[in-house]
Amino acid sequence: MRVLVFLDGTVADPDSPHIRVDDLGLMRGDGIFETVLIADGQPRELRPHLDRLARSASMLDLPEPDDEAWQRATAQVIEKWAAGPEFALKLVYTRGVDGDPEAKPTAFAMGIPIDEKIIRARREGVAAVTLDRGIDPGLAERAPWLLLGAKSLSYAVNMAASREAARRGAQDVIFTTTDGSVFEGPTSNVIVARDKTLYTPPATIGILPGTTQAAVFRGAERAGWNTKIEPLRASDLREADGVFLASSVRKLTRVHTLDGERLRDSSAIHAELAAAYESVYTGK
Amino acid sequence: MRVLVFLDGTVADPDSPHIRVDDLGLMRGDGIFETVLIADGQPRELRPHLDRLARSASMLDLPEPDDEAWQRATAQVIEKWAAGPEFALKLVYTRGVDGDPEAKPTAFAMGIPIDEKIIRARREGVAAVTLDRGIDPGLAERAPWLLLGAKSLSYAVNMAASREAARRGAQDVIFTTTDGSVFEGPTSNVIVARDKTLYTPPATIGILPGTTQAAVFRGAERAGWNTKIEPLRASDLREADGVFLASSVRKLTRVHTLDGERLRDSSAIHAELAAAYESVYTGK
Repeated sequence: MRVLVFLDGTVADPDSPHIRVDDLGLMRGDGIFETVLIADGQPRELRPHLDRLARSASMLDLPEPDDEAWQRATAQVIEKWAAGPEFALKLVYTRGVDGDPEAKPTAFAMGIPIDEKIIRARREGVAAVTLDRGIDPGLAERAPWLLLGAKSLSYAVNMAASREAARRGAQDVIFTTTDGSVFEGPTSNVIVARDKTLYTPPATIGILPGTTQAAVFRGAERAGWNTKIEPLRASDLREADGVFLASSVRKLTRVHTLDGERLRDSSAIHAELAAAYESVYTGK
Repeated sequence: MRVLVFLDGTVADPDSPHIRVDDLGLMRGDGIFETVLIADGQPRELRPHLDRLARSASMLDLPEPDDEAWQRATAQVIEKWAAGPEFALKLVYTRGVDGDPEAKPTAFAMGIPIDEKIIRARREGVAAVTLDRGIDPGLAERAPWLLLGAKSLSYAVNMAASREAARRGAQDVIFTTTDGSVFEGPTSNVIVARDKTLYTPPATIGILPGTTQAAVFRGAERAGWNTKIEPLRASDLREADGVFLASSVRKLTRVHTLDGERLRDSSAIHAELAAAYESVYTGK
């Protein structure tokens, strides 16, 4: 099942074409997106997602997103969804049609099922590989035109990295910077657990700030964990009590194997942190 | 005027929607393209363009493009074009619809007019700014998953760099590497003239090899110029007899101002090289 709602409220058939070939989202990957987890009829972290959409829009010089319209479209998709308690909501916002100075952005919200592989990975964890992202930690601040930290539709590199992982027998990727710092996954943030403290690298190095990572940190803090946002070395991953990938659809997925080497068993920590994350929404 | 032909030969209305919202070309910038100049009914450098399309496809693990089908679609667009002697032909090839293992690539050819600004820049030249591309010259060989040198649809950074140029009062960009080497433009190659020799940086540093740059070099060689493919320093640009941007629609456009500083007048050299480039096709 898929539910497609355009930002003006129009409900449309997702199996029919709706996009012109000269939409800059297609022609140039020139647009932005968000993926929101909907669980039991509730969008998780919708406010941070919409804030991040606005931030990405600003970085790409797109018109400021109409916050209320996105909220309405989100509610419409949720209302129409009838295929289980959990799904992913994509919010997509492009620069619109090329060459038309009057062009409005193309904007839609679409509910889609969560891939079985992702559901399984939440339970079983994943093998990951580290891949060089080819950037230095000062680059994002030095060169904003590189759009580091914007969630743009130009994700070909993220997809290519995921295929490289598959070639190496793994299911996911942890990008590293040229100086050996931990960066992010192609579609996730990296969280490291050590001595009852959670770590994630600072967004200032060009990472997309994680809505789920923030929720995990909030839940963990309530459960008595310390949290720190600071640079991590790739070597820290091997010495950690647990390495996790956080994203809306993944929730918190543990990395059991890194670059072919088995990591410390983090099943118990994962169970504890996953419960702490859920408690953010259930209050339990 | 626009002429749209899908790879299966279907002629379609470019003002109608033909693309599904879940096409990976839109959702992930996951596809490739080429822009071919059509002049007087003839595609220029079609063989190099199709070779580069195949190379980009291979780098993105896309199915090998059907060379003959692309040639047929090209011929169809040319046959239907009726809006002047020169236009741009876009060839677009995406991974197709998300989540469908049977999905075929989305593939179309579209003829579009050349932007007036580009035509004017051919005559008048452009002001350009240098912008850090944030990569080191060894990166492309070290990290093929970064797709450097593939002409992917993920061009949001290239577009953002062009907007940054506009903010700085310029019309174009010359990217540099982290060590101060000349890289490429967002949609062009850089050619430097000095002492009757043309220079362009080697593709091995991650540059998209230029079809027009190669044609300019061929024409210039016949006209008695030497040509060299070797690394260039950003400082070489200021000492050159001429700095040019080459691309299919730009042809050879001279850079008259760099980072706000007027460069040596290269009008005469530009005229000579532009004629040498045209002679590749006219035989004159």
